[in-house]
Amino acid sequence: MDESIIDFQRRNRLGVIEAIWGEHKSIEQISEILKKFQMASETALVTRLTKEKGEKLLIDFPSARFHEEPGCLTMGAFKECISSEVEVIILTGGTSDLGVALEAELALKLHGKKTKLLIDIGVAGLHRLLERLDEIKSAKVVIACAGMEGALPTVLAGLIPHPIIGLPVSVGYGISSGGKTALEGMLASCSPGLLVVNIDNGYGAAMAALRILSS
Amino acid sequence: MDESIIDFQRRNRLGVIEAIWGEHKSIEQISEILKKFQMASETALVTRLTKEKGEKLLIDFPSARFHEEPGCLTMGAFKECISSEVEVIILTGGTSDLGVALEAELALKLHGKKTKLLIDIGVAGLHRLLERLDEIKSAKVVIACAGMEGALPTVLAGLIPHPIIGLPVSVGYGISSGGKTALEGMLASCSPGLLVVNIDNGYGAAMAALRILSS
Amino acid sequence: MDESIIDFQRRNRLGVIEAIWGEHKSIEQISEILKKFQMASETALVTRLTKEKGEKLLIDFPSARFHEEPGCLTMGAFKECISSEVEVIILTGGTSDLGVALEAELALKLHGKKTKLLIDIGVAGLHRLLERLDEIKSAKVVIACAGMEGALPTVLAGLIPHPIIGLPVSVGYGISSGGKTALEGMLASCSPGLLVVNIDNGYGAAMAALRILSS
Amino acid sequence: MDESIIDFQRRNRLGVIEAIWGEHKSIEQISEILKKFQMASETALVTRLTKEKGEKLLIDFPSARFHEEPGCLTMGAFKECISSEVEVIILTGGTSDLGVALEAELALKLHGKKTKLLIDIGVAGLHRLLERLDEIKSAKVVIACAGMEGALPTVLAGLIPHPIIGLPVSVGYGISSGGKTALEGMLASCSPGLLVVNIDNGYGAAMAALRILSS
Amino acid sequence: MDESIIDFQRRNRLGVIEAIWGEHKSIEQISEILKKFQMASETALVTRLTKEKGEKLLIDFPSARFHEEPGCLTMGAFKECISSEVEVIILTGGTSDLGVALEAELALKLHGKKTKLLIDIGVAGLHRLLERLDEIKSAKVVIACAGMEGALPTVLAGLIPHPIIGLPVSVGYGISSGGKTALEGMLASCSPGLLVVNIDNGYGAAMAALRILSS
Amino acid sequence: MDESIIDFQRRNRLGVIEAIWGEHKSIEQISEILKKFQMASETALVTRLTKEKGEKLLIDFPSARFHEEPGCLTMGAFKECISSEVEVIILTGGTSDLGVALEAELALKLHGKKTKLLIDIGVAGLHRLLERLDEIKSAKVVIACAGMEGALPTVLAGLIPHPIIGLPVSVGYGISSGGKTALEGMLASCSPGLLVVNIDNGYGAAMAALRILSS
Amino acid sequence: MDESIIDFQRRNRLGVIEAIWGEHKSIEQISEILKKFQMASETALVTRLTKEKGEKLLIDFPSARFHEEPGCLTMGAFKECISSEVEVIILTGGTSDLGVALEAELALKLHGKKTKLLIDIGVAGLHRLLERLDEIKSAKVVIACAGMEGALPTVLAGLIPHPIIGLPVSVGYGISSGGKTALEGMLASCSPGLLVVNIDNGYGAAMAALRILSS
Amino acid sequence: MDESIIDFQRRNRLGVIEAIWGEHKSIEQISEILKKFQMASETALVTRLTKEKGEKLLIDFPSARFHEEPGCLTMGAFKECISSEVEVIILTGGTSDLGVALEAELALKLHGKKTKLLIDIGVAGLHRLLERLDEIKSAKVVIACAGMEGALPTVLAGLIPHPIIGLPVSVGYGISSGGKTALEGMLASCSPGLLVVNIDNGYGAAMAALRILSS
Repeated sequence: MDESIIDFQRRNRLGVIEAIWGEHKSIEQISEILKKFQMASETALVTRLTKEKGEKLLIDFPSARFHEEPGCLTMGAFKECISSEVEVIILTGGTSDLGVALEAELALKLHGKKTKLLIDIGVAGLHRLLERLDEIKSAKVVIACAGMEGALPTVLAGLIPHPIIGLPVSVGYGISSGGKTALEGMLASCSPGLLVVNIDNGYGAAMAALRILSS
Repeated sequence: MDESIIDFQRRNRLGVIEAIWGEHKSIEQISEILKKFQMASETALVTRLTKEKGEKLLIDFPSARFHEEPGCLTMGAFKECISSEVEVIILTGGTSDLGVALEAELALKLHGKKTKLLIDIGVAGLHRLLERLDEIKSAKVVIACAGMEGALPTVLAGLIPHPIIGLPVSVGYGISSGGKTALEGMLASCSPGLLVVNIDNGYGAAMAALRILSS
Repeated sequence: MDESIIDFQRRNRLGVIEAIWGEHKSIEQISEILKKFQMASETALVTRLTKEKGEKLLIDFPSARFHEEPGCLTMGAFKECISSEVEVIILTGGTSDLGVALEAELALKLHGKKTKLLIDIGVAGLHRLLERLDEIKSAKVVIACAGMEGALPTVLAGLIPHPIIGLPVSVGYGISSGGKTALEGMLASCSPGLLVVNIDNGYGAAMAALRILSS
Repeated sequence: MDESIIDFQRRNRLGVIEAIWGEHKSIEQISEILKKFQMASETALVTRLTKEKGEKLLIDFPSARFHEEPGCLTMGAFKECISSEVEVIILTGGTSDLGVALEAELALKLHGKKTKLLIDIGVAGLHRLLERLDEIKSAKVVIACAGMEGALPTVLAGLIPHPIIGLPVSVGYGISSGGKTALEGMLASCSPGLLVVNIDNGYGAAMAALRILSS
Repeated sequence: MDESIIDFQRRNRLGVIEAIWGEHKSIEQISEILKKFQMASETALVTRLTKEKGEKLLIDFPSARFHEEPGCLTMGAFKECISSEVEVIILTGGTSDLGVALEAELALKLHGKKTKLLIDIGVAGLHRLLERLDEIKSAKVVIACAGMEGALPTVLAGLIPHPIIGLPVSVGYGISSGGKTALEGMLASCSPGLLVVNIDNGYGAAMAALRILSS
Repeated sequence: MDESIIDFQRRNRLGVIEAIWGEHKSIEQISEILKKFQMASETALVTRLTKEKGEKLLIDFPSARFHEEPGCLTMGAFKECISSEVEVIILTGGTSDLGVALEAELALKLHGKKTKLLIDIGVAGLHRLLERLDEIKSAKVVIACAGMEGALPTVLAGLIPHPIIGLPVSVGYGISSGGKTALEGMLASCSPGLLVVNIDNGYGAAMAALRILSS
Repeated sequence: MDESIIDFQRRNRLGVIEAIWGEHKSIEQISEILKKFQMASETALVTRLTKEKGEKLLIDFPSARFHEEPGCLTMGAFKECISSEVEVIILTGGTSDLGVALEAELALKLHGKKTKLLIDIGVAGLHRLLERLDEIKSAKVVIACAGMEGALPTVLAGLIPHPIIGLPVSVGYGISSGGKTALEGMLASCSPGLLVVNIDNGYGAAMAALRILSS
Repeated sequence: MDESIIDFQRRNRLGVIEAIWGEHKSIEQISEILKKFQMASETALVTRLTKEKGEKLLIDFPSARFHEEPGCLTMGAFKECISSEVEVIILTGGTSDLGVALEAELALKLHGKKTKLLIDIGVAGLHRLLERLDEIKSAKVVIACAGMEGALPTVLAGLIPHPIIGLPVSVGYGISSGGKTALEGMLASCSPGLLVVNIDNGYGAAMAALRILSS
C-alpha cells in the first residue's frame, strides 16, 4: 500500500542522483529506501541527519559512511573526478556556516567534481576576501555561504564575473535567526546577476553548480 | 557636492554594463546620469520606467529608444550577436508575466546574446510545456518566469538538466499579491538545483544567464 | 466547575464524530474526555498524539488502538464500509508526508469510506503522476498532500475535473519550514477550483471529503 | 514571437472554460486573447476588470457584456441551466463582500448552474443566519464569503453537513486589511471540514463548487 | 549592583499587586524577588512557571502554593471576596484553553473577585453557547478565551451588551500555531466594541476586568 | 435578490446602533442602506468616508451631516447627553492621530456620552502627560490613541487605575507604517490590564467604552 | 478643544528643536502649528512634505523655505556653524537614496553642524568606497544610507572605528520593497557596533549624530 | 582545508577585539579558535554559550573564566580601566533582561570602560526612572535594555540629550515573543535620535558605545 517509489530515472533525465532528505523521515523509512538503492546498486546520499540517526543507520548499512559535520550519509561509489582544476569554489563567511558548506562540497564530490573550500572570508574583515580573489577567480562557479546579513555574495558579485550562487545559512539571532535576513539580502543584492537558493540548501547549491558545469 | 559616480569599470570587471534603475529616480537624476554615459560613449540601459517618464526622456535623448512593454530605455549600440543558436530560452506561465520576461530578453540582446521567448506555458495546462520540451532543451540556459504559485520552474527542473533561473513575477492577488508566494515556492522547490532571483528582476536573471554563458 | 462538554449532537447535525485534538491536552484531560465517550458508547478519535501519550492512554483504555504513524488513537467501532469502489484517493508528494496522509485515511475509514493511498507522486519526477492518472480518476474525491513548494495539487488540478483538496504538509526547511509555502502555493494555484485546508490538517481534509461524498 | 496560447482543451479535460484574468493584462493583451476566443466560437469570461477597462473592451467586442459590480466581462452563450433546484447558495457577511460573491455567481451561471445569493448574513447579528438555515440547507454546496475576522463559514460549518467553501474577502482595515485575517481564520476553523480558497477568488470558489457538483 | 526593585507602590497607584513573570527568570532570580515580598508582607503572584520550577520554589517558600494547571505560584493572603454575585464570567472554546483561563481566574480571586468558569463553549457547536446566554449575562464582565480561529468572542459580542475581553490562546497548528490567528481574528471582529489582550495573557485579561469593575 | 438586511435589533440587543462601514461600499450601496434607516426613523452613522463620498451623499440626504476630519456622516438625532461629568477622556499622542480620535468621540456623542479630547500628549515630552494626570483621572474610561511605537497607553496604564483602551493609529513610516508596531506594542505592554482594539478603530474603541460605562 | 501643544521645552531638555512630521498632517494642521512657532520665534523644520504641500505652505509663510529633494520646509534661522572640520559624513549607496540623505544633512545644518555628502558609494563597485576611506575617516560620525540589501554600512563598519549610523532607505522592489531588507541586514550585521535607525528616518539619524557629537 | 582565519588586524583597524560567537559553533570549533588566540597572546571573548558548553571549555582552557549569567567566556587580560567616572550606564526594564545587559557590561569592561548597571527601571512604574535621572545623566552613553513593548528607551530619549542605544531583549510572549515588538517599537520611536541594535545583541551595543566614546 504505502510503498515508496524511487525516481531512478533521475540520473538519466537530469544527470543527478536522487538525494534522500532525512530530516522528516523516520529511521525505518530511510532504511526501507536505502534497501531499494542497494538492490538497484545505486549510489545514495541522505542529507540532514542527526548524529544519532546517522549512527543507527550505519548498523544496518555497514558499507555506508556517515559525515558528521554536514550531517550526511553516503552509500556506494563516488563518481570519479577527472578534472585537474578546481571547478567549484565554496566560500563561507564564518566557521558557523561550515556544515552547510560541507553538504554542498560532499554532493559535488559525489558527482565527481573538484572543489575547494575557503572559510572565514566574511566581509567584516574585507582584506581576507580581497587577498583571495585570484584563487577564487580560478574556479568556474562560486558558491558563497553566509548567515547574518549575508553580504558576502553581494560584495563578491561586484568583483568577479563568475556565476555566483548565494547560499544563505540559518546562522544568526534576533531579527536574523533562521537565515531569512541573509536570504532576502542576497535576493535584493545591488550586484548584478547573483543567484540564490533556499536557506541551508547545500545540496541544492551543489546541484545548481552541476547544472552550470554541464551547460 | 552630490555628483553621481558611474561605475564604468564594471564592463571590464564583470563584462556587463551598469544598468540604471529608473523606478526611484527623478527624470532630472536619470538625465544627468545619461549625459555621463553619452560623454563616455557608453551604451546605457534604464529599467523600470513608466511610459510617461520614458517618453519625457526621449525628448532630451532623441537617439535613445523606449521599449514600452518592459518599461526600459536603451541608448547606444547593442553588442553584436554572433551565436547562430539560441543561447537563452525565456518561458512565461502567462501573458501577464510578459513585461518582466521582455526586460530579461532586452538585457540579454543588449549584450549580444541570442534569445527565444515562449509565453503561456503555465502548468495548469501541462501539455503546453511537454510539447515544447525539445525546443527548450536546445538552449544552454533557461529563464522561467511565473507568478501565482510559481510552479513552472519546479516542474521544468524535474524534466531537463539545464541551468534554470526561476524568475518570480508580481502577478497574483490575495495571498499571492506582490509575487512572494511565487518566490518562496521556487526557493522551496522539490526539484534539485533550481536557482532563483528577486521578484520581477528580469535584468538580474539576464545578468545571471550571462555569467553562466561566460563560465 | 471545569467539566468538559462533549458535542455528541454533532453526529446527528453534521454526520461526523467529534475528534479530540490531543496536542495541547494533558493525558488527564484526554482520559476524562474518553471516559465520557465510553459512557455514551460513542466511537472516539484522538489526533496529534505523541507515541508516549498514546501508549499511556492505552493503559487506561485497553480496548482503544494507537496508530503510531499518524499519531492517532481510536476507540470503538469503525463504521462499516459498504462501497465497492475507491471513494477517496490520497496522494503524497514524498514519504515525509506520510503521517498526515495516514491521519486523513484513518478518519475516512472510521466513517466507513473506501480509500486508497499513493505515495511518492511528487512533481520533481512527473512521470510518476502521469502514469497513475487513470487510477486517480477512478475515485470521487482526491486529497493531495505536499510539503516544500506544494505544487502537486496544482499540477493535478490542471489534469482532472475532480474535487481536489490540497493538504499542505509541514515538511520543508528554511523558507518553507512549517508548511506555509506549500499552503500559500496551493491557495495561489493557477489551476481552477483547487480547495485547501490548514497545514497538516489530515482530519479536516477527510471531513471535507466526507461532506463532498454526502452532497 | 509572443503569441498567447489559449488552453481550449481545458473544457474537455476539466469541464470548465479558461477564464482570462484581467487585472495584470493591458487592454491590448485582453483584446488579442478575446479575438482568439471569438475565432474559436468559445464563450469567454474576463475577471477583475476596472469599469474603465471593461467599457473600452465593449467598443471592440459589442456582443460582449460587462458586469460592473463583479468587474467581469462575458462574451458568448451561457450554458443552459437545467436544474430546477438551487445547486449553490452564496452567502455574504456584509454588503461590502458583494463584488466577490457576484463573481462566483456569474462564473457558476456561465456553466449552467442554478444559484442563490443571500447577503448580510454576518455573525454579528446571528439571528439573520439562524433564520435562513433551512433555505441554506436546500442547496448542495455553500459558498460563504466573509471579510474582517471571517467567522461566518466557521459558524455555518458547525451547523450543517454540506460542503462549505470559505471565500475570504479583502474587506477590512488595520490588522485585517487585505483579507489575510479572514483567510487564516477560515483555515484555522474549529469546525470540521471547512474548505478554503484564496482571498477574493470568487471564480475559484465557483470552479470548486462545479467540481463538487460534477463528482 | 544588580538589585531588583519591586514596585510596591503599584498597589496604591493602580489597586493591583505586581505579578512576577516567571518564564524568563531563573529560580534564583524569582527566589530573591519573593524574599522581598515576604519581608514586605506583600501577597505575591508568580505566573508562567513550569511544574519543575514551581515545585523547587515551594521548598524555599513552604507557605506558598503552586497551581499546576495555570502554572502559577501564590504566596500570602487572597483578598476577601465580598460580592455575592458572579462579577466575571470566564469562557473557553475548548479544554485546551483551560490553563490560560485558570490564570485569569486565579488573578481575579487573588484580588477578591467572584468568578465563574465555563469551558467547551466553542462556536463549532453553537447550541452550547446559546443555552448558556442567561448565565453569562448575569456577570458584569466576560473574558472569552479561544484559540484556533478565535470566533467565540465575536459571536458573543453580537449577542450581549457586556464588556467582553477577548483572550486569544496559543492553541492551534499550521497557520494558527502560536495563537496569532485567534488574536487577529478578535481584533478584526465584525462585532462592535470587542476588547483584546495579548495571546495567553490571562493575567492581563484579569487586570483589565479589575479595572472595569472598579470604574 | 441582493437586498441588504439592516440589524435594527442591535439597538435592543446591544444598546448600540449599527454603524455603516463606508470604506469598501459604493455610494449607491450606502444610499440604499441609508434609505432603510430613514424609513425606520433610525439614527445612522457611516464611518471611513472620503470627503468626495461624503459630500455626494449629502445631496441625497440633506438632513445628514458630514464630519470631515473623522470622515464620518451622521443622520438623525444624537442621543441626549445627561451626564454632567466627563465620562470618557480621549488622548492622542500627536496631531496626526486626530481623525481617529474624532471618530471615537463622535460615536460616543451619538450615544449621548460626555467626552473630552486632549491632543499632543505624546511620551516624547512626558511632562505634557504628567501635568494632565488629574484631569485624565476624573473620567471613568480612557481611550489613548497613538501611532509610531504606541507607548502612550503603556505609560498611562502604569500611572492610573482606570480602564484604558489602547487605540493604535496608522501613523508612522518604515517599520511602523500601517500602525502594526503601535498595535503590537500595546498588546505587549508591560503595564497590567491594558485593553486594545484594531488599528484606526475609533468606532470600536467608542463602543467598548460604551459597554464599560453600561456595565 | 483640539489645540496642539508644541514641546518648546525640548530645545532646553534635549538640545534639539521639535520637528513637525508633515506626512499625515493636513495643510491646515501644519499651518496652525507653524503659527505657534512663529509667535514663539522658534526655528521650525517640517519633514516628509510633498512638493504640492510644501508650495502651498510657502504662500502663508513667505519667509519659509521649501527644500524639494528632501521634501522639507524650514522657517527661521539656522544655528551658526562654528566647526572648521567636517563633523558628519553622509554616504549613499546610490542616487535613489539622495532624498533621505539630504533630509539628514538639512537637519544637521539647521543645528549648526558641518556635514559632507558622498553619493554612489555602493558596494557593487567596491573601489568607490575604498578610494574614499581617508576622506570618510576625517569626520567624527558617519551616516551610511543604503536601500536594496543594505550592505554598505556593514562593509564600512569593518573598515573604520567610527560611530556609524546605518540609515536604511525604502529603495528596492520585490522582496526588498519598502526598505525592510536593508533594515534587517543592518541590524544583523556581522560587523561589530553598527547602529541603526528606522527606514527613511533621515531626521532621526541626524538627531542621533547630534547626540553623539554632544556627548 | 577548513582552517579558520582570525581577524587579528581588527584590534588595530577598529580598536576592538574580535568576539567569537559561540551559539552555532561546536565545542571543537571554539577550542580550535581559542588555541589560535592563545598562541597569539590575544584576549578572547566568546559569547552566547550555554552553561554546559562553557564548563566544558574551561577544562581545556583553565585560565579562562566563564560568566554564567551573560553566558560568556573570557580568556586573557582585561584592558585597564583608567576613567574615574562612569562612561556607560546600562539600564534594564526588568530582571529578565539581565543576561543581555551583563553581556554588554562584560564587553565594555574587557575594553577598559567604566560602567554602571541599573535594573528594574521599567516604564510601568515610571517613578523608578524619574528618580534615577540625574544618576543616568552623569554617564556619556546610555544602553537601555527592554523586552515586551520596549518603551523604556523611547521615554528616556525624550528626557535626556545623551546618545541612547536601545537594546531590545527577547523577553515576551504571544505577539512579543522573540523580541521583535520591542525592536520595532524602538525603531519607530517618537523620540528624536534613538539608536537601535539587533535583539539580544549586548556585545553589539557595547561595541557601539565604544565607538561613540572613542569619537
